This record gives sequence, C-alpha cells and structure tokens, in this order.
Amino acid sequence: MKSNLFITFEGPEGAGKTTVIQKIAERLAQENIDVLATREPGGIEIAEKIRTIILNPAHTAMDERTEALLYAAARSQHYFEKVRPALDAGKMVICDRFIDSSLAYQGYARGIGVDEVLSINEFAIGKKLPDITILFDLEPEIGLARIHAHGEREVNRLDVESLAFHQKVRKGYLQLVDRYPERIHVVNADQNIERVVEDVWALLFDALQ
Amino acid sequence: MKSNLFITFEGPEGAGKTTVIQKIAERLAQENIDVLATREPGGIEIAEKIRTIILNPAHTAMDERTEALLYAAARSQHYFEKVRPALDAGKMVICDRFIDSSLAYQGYARGIGVDEVLSINEFAIGKKLPDITILFDLEPEIGLARIHAHGEREVNRLDVESLAFHQKVRKGYLQLVDRYPERIHVVNADQNIERVVEDVWALLFDALQ
Repeated sequence: MKSNLFITFEGPEGAGKTTVIQKIAERLAQENIDVLATREPGGIEIAEKIRTIILNPAHTAMDERTEALLYAAARSQHYFEKVRPALDAGKMVICDRFIDSSLAYQGYARGIGVDEVLSINEFAIGKKLPDITILFDLEPEIGLARIHAHGEREVNRLDVESLAFHQKVRKGYLQLVDRYPERIHVVNADQNIERVVEDVWALLFDALQ
Repeated sequence: MKSNLFITFEGPEGAGKTTVIQKIAERLAQENIDVLATREPGGIEIAEKIRTIILNPAHTAMDERTEALLYAAARSQHYFEKVRPALDAGKMVICDRFIDSSLAYQGYARGIGVDEVLSINEFAIGKKLPDITILFDLEPEIGLARIHAHGEREVNRLDVESLAFHQKVRKGYLQLVDRYPERIHVVNADQNIERVVEDVWALLFDALQ
C-alpha cells in the first residue's frame, strides 16, 4: 500500500468521525503503515489555545470573519508544525477535519463565500489540498440528536447553532463534492459504526493501492 | 473640526505612542470632539485573548503565517465590535496600531510579502483603510533601549526579535509611506515626548480642518 498520504475526515459533529478514525488508524497500523492521527482545530499547543477561543460558548459576539481567520491560523500552525513534517518523514497522516470544514462552515453556511475562505486558507497552508478526503454524510437532525443524547463531551459554540445552519453546512459539503469529485468520497454515516468503518476501509483500501 | 475620522498610530515599541495617544485624546476632548481611544491587538475581550496567544514569549514555535492570521482575526473582531460602531455613531476613533503594523512586521520584516498580508487583512476588515495614520519614526536601537531601560511592561515575543528584524520593520514602514503618501504622516519620535505631542497635534490639526 502507498504511505505518505494526507487523508482528511469531514462531516458534522455526531457523525462518528472520532471513533471511526481511531479504528481506521488501528487497521492501518496492522498493515504496517506508519500513521499519525491528528485533529483540527488543535493538535498542538498553539493551535489548541486558538481552539479554546473559537469553541468557547461564551464568545457569541465572535465575528464570522474572525472565526474563519482563527481556523486558518490554527490550521497553518498545525500543518507546518505537525502534518508536513510527518508527511516528509514518510508517514501517513489522517486528520479529523481540515480545510473543507472551513469551506463548508464559514464559506458556505456563514455566507462569507467559499472562494474568499479558500483564499485565506491558501495563505495559511499553500495550494496543496489533502490527497483523499472522506465525507461522513448525515442528516443534521441525527447528528445533533446523537451529541445531546451521548453527552460524551461538552456542548460547544457550533453545536448550539440552529438546525438551519447545520443544514447549510451539509449542503456546503455536498457542493464541495461536486467541486472536488476526485478527492472527496462520501460515506453514509447513518449506519452503525462497524458498517461505517467497513465502508471507509473499503474506500481507503481502493485509493491506497 | 471634523469628527468621525479613523486615525491610527504606528511605529516601533519604545517610540512613545501610548503616552502621546493619551495626551492627544485629552486635547481632542478639550476641543469637544467625542473620541474613542483604543489599541491593537486587543481592545475587546475576544481580541485580548488572541493577543495573549500572539505575544506569549513561550510561543517561539509560532509559524509566521499563523501570526499574521491571528493579527487579522483580532483586527476583524476589534474593528466590527468596537471601531466601526463608534465611527457610525459619529465618534473619532484613535487606535494604537492597525493594518500597517501587519504590513510592516509580517508582510515586510517577516518576508511574507506586503500584498499577501494586505489580502488577508482585506478579508478581515474590507478595503477601507484609516483616514489618517501617524508614523512614529525612530532608530530601532533607541526604541529597544527605552523598552529595556524603563521596564514599564513585560518584555513580549516581538521585543526579543533581533535588531536586524526591527531595522526591517522600520524599512517596511517607510516603504508604506511611499505607498500611501496621502494617508501616512511621519513624526520624528527621537525627541522629548512634549515635542512629539506638539508635532502630532500640528499634523492632526491641519488634517482635521
């Protein structure tokens, strides 16, 4: 199998990304692939501090452009300090959220514009996009219900956005699939987690040959 | 006199900006001009939190693009939450540092490029620049010596940059004067503070008629 690839996972909260990524990382390790699993926003100290500002539910006054710039700032730091060196060392990197989150949430759902948000992200990380992106597609109602039912983590500033906002996020993601059909692969996240893991694994296995 | 103007103060640390701005704000108030005096990075809660990340001397690993994006993020929040509403309410706003700091420090001195840094700042605040900018020009050696001698505040991550860096910042600022000759006015900051206040006041008084 190929290594040295940069694979990102996208989709709403409550879609099971975190659990699936963990299981996929284990399988890749079993195939003797040297994998770094990381996440956005955060992944390293400076970016984690930026993350706490972005996600603080008290920051209701946050301007949408400020939010987009903070995500880009955290992305730049995480990419150059952690992702890029791992890829350069021959590792595979799998990352929970990346540039498509900004394009779908800030560019599309907040209405700033996908191209505008793309341009500040190109400032942040250059023009290179991930090699493969797996989009966990899910009705927003289901994702939100899972978050509130599980109570596995604290509710953040984006969880409390309206259902209409989360529906726009989904639409934004699906438009990105049209824009980047070679890169972004859709997985149905409205299945039990083992099934989702199998679907993701099949997709990756094909892509990695 | 005109009110409703957005006036920014630029220049290195140790140039006396803070003291001069305070005295200028007092004089403007004596002329019955409703003035808001504020500063960057910071000026409001979310931006102050971003400021603490930017200036923390422990963050030596901060990527230069991350730094530029954080300044732009703080600027956007400060501008839309505080500066713009004050201008819309007919106030004069005087601000310690604004977009030219990013252009001189990150664009020119860090070598990212002035146009690139300008573009993320246009994303942050739109294309409208300040009405008047006063540049405190000073040999970097003198500014740095003042900071270390006075010990009035804690030394931050930018103070400990090399002298060569601060020389580039000065060169960057002077290039901005060539680029925006109508907007940016230079004041010699290597004088006693009363003299600097008089020079700034004379410049502003002319510009405000």
